[in-house]
Amino acid sequence: MTDPVTAAAMARARELGWTALGRTSPNPAVGAVVLDAAGRVVGEGATAPPGGPHAEVAALAQAGERARGGTAVVTLEPCDHTGRTGPCSEALLAAGVARVVVAVPEPTGLAAGGAQRLRAAGVDVVTGVEQDAAEDGALAPWLLGVREQRPQVVWKVATTLDGRVAAADGTSRWITGPVARAQVHRLRATCDAVLVGSGTVLTDDPQLTVRDADGADADRQPLRVVLDRRGRVPAGARVHDGAARTHVSTAPDPGALLGELWDLDVRRVLLEGGPTLAAAFLSAGLVDEVVAHLAPQLLGAGPALVGDLGISTMAAALQLTPVDVTPLGRDVQLRFRPTRHTGGVMTPEETTD
Amino acid sequence: MTDPVTAAAMARARELGWTALGRTSPNPAVGAVVLDAAGRVVGEGATAPPGGPHAEVAALAQAGERARGGTAVVTLEPCDHTGRTGPCSEALLAAGVARVVVAVPEPTGLAAGGAQRLRAAGVDVVTGVEQDAAEDGALAPWLLGVREQRPQVVWKVATTLDGRVAAADGTSRWITGPVARAQVHRLRATCDAVLVGSGTVLTDDPQLTVRDADGADADRQPLRVVLDRRGRVPAGARVHDGAARTHVSTAPDPGALLGELWDLDVRRVLLEGGPTLAAAFLSAGLVDEVVAHLAPQLLGAGPALVGDLGISTMAAALQLTPVDVTPLGRDVQLRFRPTRHTGGVMTPEETTD
Repeated sequence: MTDPVTAAAMARARELGWTALGRTSPNPAVGAVVLDAAGRVVGEGATAPPGGPHAEVAALAQAGERARGGTAVVTLEPCDHTGRTGPCSEALLAAGVARVVVAVPEPTGLAAGGAQRLRAAGVDVVTGVEQDAAEDGALAPWLLGVREQRPQVVWKVATTLDGRVAAADGTSRWITGPVARAQVHRLRATCDAVLVGSGTVLTDDPQLTVRDADGADADRQPLRVVLDRRGRVPAGARVHDGAARTHVSTAPDPGALLGELWDLDVRRVLLEGGPTLAAAFLSAGLVDEVVAHLAPQLLGAGPALVGDLGISTMAAALQLTPVDVTPLGRDVQLRFRPTRHTGGVMTPEETTD
Repeated sequence: MTDPVTAAAMARARELGWTALGRTSPNPAVGAVVLDAAGRVVGEGATAPPGGPHAEVAALAQAGERARGGTAVVTLEPCDHTGRTGPCSEALLAAGVARVVVAVPEPTGLAAGGAQRLRAAGVDVVTGVEQDAAEDGALAPWLLGVREQRPQVVWKVATTLDGRVAAADGTSRWITGPVARAQVHRLRATCDAVLVGSGTVLTDDPQLTVRDADGADADRQPLRVVLDRRGRVPAGARVHDGAARTHVSTAPDPGALLGELWDLDVRRVLLEGGPTLAAAFLSAGLVDEVVAHLAPQLLGAGPALVGDLGISTMAAALQLTPVDVTPLGRDVQLRFRPTRHTGGVMTPEETTD
């Protein structure tokens, strides 16, 4: 069991990790809290954008001399590797911390060895503390990238109760209300890229930027990605307005597209495309999380939430695992993860057993 | 402000009303609590099936002599009318209660006058106590019947996240899990009738009875109603299995069908039909509550939750007002009421303003 002071610090470290998500790729979004010898919080930090300090270093800088004899609580094992920044293990030793509490052990060979080096220097190191919570949090995209060498894919969709994403005439503004739309901007801000197909650009001409409550562009914008195999997107589309970088892809399939984005250091992508693109990613087993904003409306006609999945009978339905349900004004946010076994999305054939 | 003892008794009275719902029609499902002179609960009652005692009389019988000088708390104004039972106002006077607390004043001329008669006899009568909560509760179907001379319609639908009520091959068992299905049986038990179209009978051959957790038929069953204008339902269908009464209707439209059911003393009907029947009721403005059970599944094809509503553009979507969201195992129950003004469902034309 973790003592309450350490547990509170670890919970705060996870929160700090979330604040950095969307700004750290290809590095993990880590959070760190430094406690002094009496257990008081004396420093907090999160991973800075690439080239900037890691979470522990930022938290130690805030703590200064008060870190001596204290505890560093971090969501990921401190690195022992000199990249664009020096090893965090060294910084922790230099600061004189007596104890390091880690949620997730470093999974890559490159940066591993931090815990070992700290222990060798006499620091008390505990790993695996509330590991599941940290793995499910802001570290999830990076950990998935380590395992699968591709970005995490979050599929966001706004739908009516009857599963329509637009009316029969193609209009879709606005299915959801202002609270849900603001939430989409916060979600975009946690992603390295926002992805749509050419169909969505031609129908809705979205800007795909992160905007605050006043409609002003945020200082940091995710990469806008348009899958446009047939070159249908006009130069005057809003995705080309210069408000953020835009990548136009002609990748032949979702896997190839994610490979391109991986090479652009994208580790978390928000899939905001229409039913066809969503169906392609779902069928390929390349959706990691579903964020559905359900509006209290009925249309009775219009394009459905997801296109053909090649499923013809109930027993073959694509199963999702509910994560949580959150009211967003008049709308409801439902989060799911595709139900997996052995790492892949369950295929229709597998579910009929 | 209501004092806490009275407020608790009124909350309990509303609960008691719910326990009677589905067994009292054409009478209202009333709940009553009797407190002795010291404010202790000494009697509880709910409306018995037609011909049996009203809620106050049942609660007074339980209280006996302890009612003398006490308080009767009831969700509906005591009747002053002799029907199959004697006036409740008389029973309250005979029991010697000093005070009567009422949520909803009697809206029908026939039974009105209870409060006046009690006051004339020196009883302290308060009406309108937590009236909204009582009107939204077990009294709602009966009150709607008083206003509109038709049964309340609750549309229950089980759907995947993408708004499908069946797969492409017509299979729909089981979209939702056992917790949601058990909830449907509890919901049926609060209704006087369960309604489907012939298409649902031909596709699913449902029994439409109320069954308990062991699958045994409940002692009291709602009327099974099948709209079958073309005489397509075979004699061997399970709705004709004798486990409950069955009414086959050839009514030309939803309004006429509800008129038939009204004459059969139905005051609350559960619409469990498919997309076509649901669309007909929604388009006619004859759905009072939507109970959607959303399953964490995707199908990508198959019949949608609701058929054509004649809506072609987003601004004309049929608006619903969320009531509540309740997890049911892996599924989620979402309740809505159609957004109304001046008594009718908002039409597409009206929402475009």
